[in-house]
Amino acid sequence: MKPAGNEDHSAPPAWERVSSEVRHEYMVFRTRHDRVRSPMNGEVYDWDIVESPDAVAVLALTEARELVMIEQFRHGTGEVVLELPGGVLDEGEAPIEAGLRELREETGYTAGDAELLGTLALNPAFQTGRIHLVRAYGARSTDDKELDEAEDTRVRLIPVAEAISRVREGSLDTAVAIATLARHVWNEDGDREPGAER
Amino acid sequence: MKPAGNEDHSAPPAWERVSSEVRHEYMVFRTRHDRVRSPMNGEVYDWDIVESPDAVAVLALTEARELVMIEQFRHGTGEVVLELPGGVLDEGEAPIEAGLRELREETGYTAGDAELLGTLALNPAFQTGRIHLVRAYGARSTDDKELDEAEDTRVRLIPVAEAISRVREGSLDTAVAIATLARHVWNEDGDREPGAER
Repeated sequence: MKPAGNEDHSAPPAWERVSSEVRHEYMVFRTRHDRVRSPMNGEVYDWDIVESPDAVAVLALTEARELVMIEQFRHGTGEVVLELPGGVLDEGEAPIEAGLRELREETGYTAGDAELLGTLALNPAFQTGRIHLVRAYGARSTDDKELDEAEDTRVRLIPVAEAISRVREGSLDTAVAIATLARHVWNEDGDREPGAER
Repeated sequence: MKPAGNEDHSAPPAWERVSSEVRHEYMVFRTRHDRVRSPMNGEVYDWDIVESPDAVAVLALTEARELVMIEQFRHGTGEVVLELPGGVLDEGEAPIEAGLRELREETGYTAGDAELLGTLALNPAFQTGRIHLVRAYGARSTDDKELDEAEDTRVRLIPVAEAISRVREGSLDTAVAIATLARHVWNEDGDREPGAER
């Protein structure tokens, strides 16, 4: 027997934010405390939020259809992680511009022909900020990297098919890199991947 | 000309954590301040981290090969979001057990035949905690939902092919749901998707 309560096709109503105050400032993010009113019962609940800035991840492909990826030690997970280049948007910077800048700084690669693939929410439960996804073609090594003194990135050129194998095996395991790769492969242009001419 | 510095095939060395202290406790997460020593120059740098608990996301398929998803209002993004069921692991709870519990509580669906697809890192730059991915087959509506009083989930049954279309269009845009869907589709079992018999 199918309980009726599981078949509600209406959209869930939005909550009202009754109050909102910044709690603490940190290096990359800050915390905020909200009071939110439930549209179901009118009650007010507390909720803590991490405000993180908008960021960009760039999926750059070489002429040989390799992804320009990086390995770096990350302090959140305490491990060396394989990722797409990316970072926080500078003040007033457009996502495509930011993506090409991060690509150049973190890998020394330059790409042309860049486009927005969309945006991702990282952690809707308690985190603000979106990840803008930039796809760029024709990436090639043109410059020295420009790293902050606390950064140490190693460039890894990885064919799309190998990246998919790594997702399957677990050696590519960051949500943003996998989701961006999926958006690339599942996009109309991506349907010709891997190895297809543009 | 290809700058030599971009072709370093060695793995980046790990950093030493010199000190680590909890800063503030919040409802779902807490903040931590680390001092970390660079293996490149021996200097010590400050770094702020969000410690978030391990969580689970469950990709449950009905016999008709639909994904059991939910729509709910989320306070981090301040929007109604389409997601996979999931949540924080209870103390001592195994990921598969947690995934089936969250599925039952948030959707009223029961599934058997569950397996781990792997884990994801959400935000390696400044966040701890991994997302365990559980895949389950044979999901069907068996119970009433068991929601906290501040929860309001609406079940959405979405065929795999439609979920992929939604990723392409941007109406499915959470990193965890997209990455989990990709792991499902790209897995050996998933190669027969959509619409294939097990």
